[in-house]
Amino acid sequence: MGQRAVDYRREFKITPEQANGTAVNIVTMVFGNMGNDCSTGVGFTRDPGTGENVMYGEYLVNAQGEDVVAGIRTPKPVAEMKDEMPDLYRQLVELRNKLEGHYHEVQDYEYTIEKGVLYCLQTRNGKMNAQGMVRSSVEMANEGLITREKALLRIDPESLEQMMFPQLDPKHKAAPAAVGMGASPGASSGKIVFDADTAVKRGRGAGEKIILMREETKPEDIHGFFAAVGILTSRGGKTSHAAVVARGMGKPCVVGAEAIHVNVHQRQAIIGDKVLHEGDVLTIDGGTGAVYFGDVPTVEPEFTPELRTLLGWADEIATLKVMANADTPDAAQRASNYGAMGIGLCRTERMFNAKERLPTVLEMILAETTEDREAALAKLLPMQRSDFKEIFRAMAPRPVTVRLLDPPIHEFLPSEQTLIDDIEHLRHLRQTAQGLEAISQILGQVNPKAVEQLGILNDSHLVADVLAKKEEILQKARALHEINPMLGHRGVRLGLTYPEIYKMQIRAILEAAAECMQERVNVHPEIMVPQVCTVEELKRVKALVDEVLPEVEAKYAVKVHFEFGTMMEVVRACLRAEEIAGVAEFFSFGTNDLTQATFSFSREDAENKFLPFYNSAGILKDNPFEALDTAGVGQLMQFAVSNGRKTRAGLKVGICGEQGGHPRSMRFCHYANLTYVSCSSPRVPIARLAAAHAKLLEGEYQP
Amino acid sequence: MGQRAVDYRREFKITPEQANGTAVNIVTMVFGNMGNDCSTGVGFTRDPGTGENVMYGEYLVNAQGEDVVAGIRTPKPVAEMKDEMPDLYRQLVELRNKLEGHYHEVQDYEYTIEKGVLYCLQTRNGKMNAQGMVRSSVEMANEGLITREKALLRIDPESLEQMMFPQLDPKHKAAPAAVGMGASPGASSGKIVFDADTAVKRGRGAGEKIILMREETKPEDIHGFFAAVGILTSRGGKTSHAAVVARGMGKPCVVGAEAIHVNVHQRQAIIGDKVLHEGDVLTIDGGTGAVYFGDVPTVEPEFTPELRTLLGWADEIATLKVMANADTPDAAQRASNYGAMGIGLCRTERMFNAKERLPTVLEMILAETTEDREAALAKLLPMQRSDFKEIFRAMAPRPVTVRLLDPPIHEFLPSEQTLIDDIEHLRHLRQTAQGLEAISQILGQVNPKAVEQLGILNDSHLVADVLAKKEEILQKARALHEINPMLGHRGVRLGLTYPEIYKMQIRAILEAAAECMQERVNVHPEIMVPQVCTVEELKRVKALVDEVLPEVEAKYAVKVHFEFGTMMEVVRACLRAEEIAGVAEFFSFGTNDLTQATFSFSREDAENKFLPFYNSAGILKDNPFEALDTAGVGQLMQFAVSNGRKTRAGLKVGICGEQGGHPRSMRFCHYANLTYVSCSSPRVPIARLAAAHAKLLEGEYQP
Repeated sequence: MGQRAVDYRREFKITPEQANGTAVNIVTMVFGNMGNDCSTGVGFTRDPGTGENVMYGEYLVNAQGEDVVAGIRTPKPVAEMKDEMPDLYRQLVELRNKLEGHYHEVQDYEYTIEKGVLYCLQTRNGKMNAQGMVRSSVEMANEGLITREKALLRIDPESLEQMMFPQLDPKHKAAPAAVGMGASPGASSGKIVFDADTAVKRGRGAGEKIILMREETKPEDIHGFFAAVGILTSRGGKTSHAAVVARGMGKPCVVGAEAIHVNVHQRQAIIGDKVLHEGDVLTIDGGTGAVYFGDVPTVEPEFTPELRTLLGWADEIATLKVMANADTPDAAQRASNYGAMGIGLCRTERMFNAKERLPTVLEMILAETTEDREAALAKLLPMQRSDFKEIFRAMAPRPVTVRLLDPPIHEFLPSEQTLIDDIEHLRHLRQTAQGLEAISQILGQVNPKAVEQLGILNDSHLVADVLAKKEEILQKARALHEINPMLGHRGVRLGLTYPEIYKMQIRAILEAAAECMQERVNVHPEIMVPQVCTVEELKRVKALVDEVLPEVEAKYAVKVHFEFGTMMEVVRACLRAEEIAGVAEFFSFGTNDLTQATFSFSREDAENKFLPFYNSAGILKDNPFEALDTAGVGQLMQFAVSNGRKTRAGLKVGICGEQGGHPRSMRFCHYANLTYVSCSSPRVPIARLAAAHAKLLEGEYQP
Repeated sequence: MGQRAVDYRREFKITPEQANGTAVNIVTMVFGNMGNDCSTGVGFTRDPGTGENVMYGEYLVNAQGEDVVAGIRTPKPVAEMKDEMPDLYRQLVELRNKLEGHYHEVQDYEYTIEKGVLYCLQTRNGKMNAQGMVRSSVEMANEGLITREKALLRIDPESLEQMMFPQLDPKHKAAPAAVGMGASPGASSGKIVFDADTAVKRGRGAGEKIILMREETKPEDIHGFFAAVGILTSRGGKTSHAAVVARGMGKPCVVGAEAIHVNVHQRQAIIGDKVLHEGDVLTIDGGTGAVYFGDVPTVEPEFTPELRTLLGWADEIATLKVMANADTPDAAQRASNYGAMGIGLCRTERMFNAKERLPTVLEMILAETTEDREAALAKLLPMQRSDFKEIFRAMAPRPVTVRLLDPPIHEFLPSEQTLIDDIEHLRHLRQTAQGLEAISQILGQVNPKAVEQLGILNDSHLVADVLAKKEEILQKARALHEINPMLGHRGVRLGLTYPEIYKMQIRAILEAAAECMQERVNVHPEIMVPQVCTVEELKRVKALVDEVLPEVEAKYAVKVHFEFGTMMEVVRACLRAEEIAGVAEFFSFGTNDLTQATFSFSREDAENKFLPFYNSAGILKDNPFEALDTAGVGQLMQFAVSNGRKTRAGLKVGICGEQGGHPRSMRFCHYANLTYVSCSSPRVPIARLAAAHAKLLEGEYQP
């Protein structure tokens, strides 16, 4: 059989005579198996794996295309053709140059040589991995084959994720054992452990690769996160503690893998009919949410020089700035490496979560008087100040936006259930001790020897002490309990009820800035207030700043420059933006909370209960927590931007919700005239490219 | 000492010569103690207690004003002056007529008679109770002294609450023992009981007046509400179960009286250092939230003929219609008595709460398959249908808007804590039984007699059965558990996930309407969908209606007319009103939920934790759950009204949140061109008067 020399899009026939001419549309039948001056082959105009500008492909002498595909004979690498058929090789190089010159894109082409004549059978844009796309983009632009704009636009920003995180080897054949939600991208394999302490012991201590596996995580598990290569939970959604912390650290994380039954007490987990024990190996893919038994091979990420070049071009074109969300000095350094133009969101509460600080935080929470609370806060002040100072230094001279305490304080306590279980256990211990004492009396009257058979616990006093402390914490946890914590006593509401907390944080920020200035580090701190619903709240916090500022300036004898602004994450704040901009020097849309309030969807409940159904049934096209809901939330944002700028022309406006790093959402942000987006560090490169896309494609954008 | 005949506003001096003339401004000193032709007195131009048009007041012969006030001598009723000083009495009548003729308002005046000359010392508008105001309004209008408009405007709508509910006797001197939140107005005294069953036993059975007192209430307590004269809880806010149900029933209710420690197990409550036992008497004031020891006297309300007349005038003037929120046939009847123009909100879930229905509801919740769920729903269908039918009949020919199931289904289960406690108790029973068995073996070896001393429980099998059931329910409760139930799996989200629930309810509504039509009752049912955030949800529910309707019409051989509409209680729905009005034939603003979402305030958490502080510190002027936040929530409403009417001119728009019955909020509703408000039955008269005020004062309204 011959082969039809036809591409479904375009056809080429290249003869030696025509090699420098234009391609001609001809339908004909060609044969590559009519002798040793015939052959057939496939090629890419550049190496699709690396993007390198080399001849790439394989050919078979005296064969048809299906022979290559069938794998009966082993084809030769195209380089061998140079010696075997030098003239045809030259023609093939010309074909390749012609194809790229015509399409201005890497081509994946097939050809047949019939008796010394080269026929191109078909060609199409070549599918390449991210690294190949990036390198070929930069090189094609440098070769003058495409413009820098085209070089940027031909790359899907999302595809860069491959270059930021370890990925499962694309050739793996493993089937998932369970599928949860991919909460923080990247893939990793490790031995499972069921608690943070064991994670530290085996991960840090014994140097093992550890996956921390729990039903859900709490702030007291934070040291386990540092020690683990991945986090896996059986409950919770993409804003659960595990998800948010892992994203912040850039560690792979799968949450809500409900098919897994974790039993911490028995130190085992059940998936289907398989029982896993501590030390068994799992692999998780934080992109897809898949969980695999055993060690599935992964490939490492690479931040190549070509990527740096490309993103440099992107930054020149983009008008939307890209900042990072980073809460610790380490994270700030990572953000800087990824090219973040500042920190758009530094969450101060993360600093409360360090294991050695939690007892002090607990002291603050249990304080019954302002004095006791201030005493505990005084211990936290130097910790926060030194964190801020390190973060400022890591990012200098770029701005760092610090958000004052946001979550409700009960989040720093163990869960009520944990406390109840502990108390129950302690009571049981005590009761047993008491019960046995009583029984021993009866027995003692009958047969003193029997008393020894039962044994008596003598540590009931110690038990009673621990029990009393646990009961105090439980009582506090119950007093702080909220029906809907997402809409409860948090953010500025908490900050105004207990102004000493915000004052401590404000002082820590300003003192850290002052110390940096004394050391001639160029700092640009910004103080940001969460959960604001009315301008009056902002004025009250501003008054706290005005109280602390002169004290700090006097202490350090420097003038501290900073900006004061607000989260826009409450619907009402968007509606009152005109007034709020009278006090706020910048806005930052918290689109996670704003989306929750606009839809009346609690993210964790929605993603666990009905949002997957809503998406699959087509009731909602997207998950609005991943892709910004431009029709609803976007309207509020536009309203706030235009009204805010009525009061303060040129008001700086950003977005620090998760959607801020989402390319499609960023096109809306550009359209809505936002100043910057802020996203997790590893998404910064994606967002830098997406920001350039948004600018380049602004003419054709429809929200 | 003489008295200065001067009113700080105006002065009168009336002599016999001037009795028909104009009052003259003269400052002079007059004396009522210069002999027996002198006297001093005070009076109201009408009876301030009843409003009756009679001479009202007291006088003292040969005395000064301070003698009346000092109470040294007992003054005589003014009627005696008619015989004692007929000429002066005639002058006094003339003065009274002149005062009312001049001020067009009931006057509270003082006078002195000096040697046969009547001097008016001062006059001011008389302070009267609501009943007095209403009767005098109607009579002054009928006498031609004031217009009907003036008759309506001179009464504060809120004051009518006095005429709807029993009130504490204004003369009581009791000091509150505790103060919670007034959650449902009216005052009542009764013997406290700690659970619903005892409330029924003592309230219905023994005919005692009962106050049901609990930490908080749950749907399974509902029979206790019916049996009680008042509800008192130590936890929860104004939207807690207790508050909402009590308001619906029009029973006095105080919630969140945190100074009271209720211990159901010990059947006692502690207030301060006082321990209360079941049967002790308390009085609660659901208006102020005050709780008193013992029986504080109350006065009964009266819906007078004058009030009926006045509200009839109000209805003629008002353009804003007044509907009632009513969930049961009884409540519908009460709403009708109060002059409701229809039912704006009939909450179907209340019908699930009846004690005899809860097991069927539980069956529905525990169902693991659609078939099992449908089987349970088939049992609920006739119950809902017969409720709807009675409600439709009670309101015919006025419209009845039925809201499909709204709350998350876990609300129908006992609380997790209750279940855990029960299970713990059962386990303990079982363990004790087992433990004692084990110990009895040891003892048996030593001294068989001792076994009897310990006793052995033999009911461990029964315990195991109950335990298994409780554990099944707990497991379900945990599976249904939500982090933020207010923003969770409820309303239309639930209705689309389990369409069989909404289909049952739609069928019950349409069949009830069809049966009424067959009986020639003129019905106007409306089907309303809660928690809508996108038009697509509404289309899907409409498709369910379109599926059920032909079946019902075929079954009853009638054409059923109804309207199909939506709650507007999700911010996003307001933003997408233009699309939504393409499917919805009416909007009803659920301003409770809309306010929660707009402020990101969970009402229960806010009112318990920070809203009182926000109000007292002036951060927020009002509680936005009581007075509509026109600057924020109001903007969303206006946006929705105007955009909805772009699609559907003349779209019917109402409000059924609690603010709907609040006079100041109603002025905004009138301004925003709403069609109707819907409020709890006893607020209907208040709202009818407020609707007239809103119309009469529309020119001077500023939102």
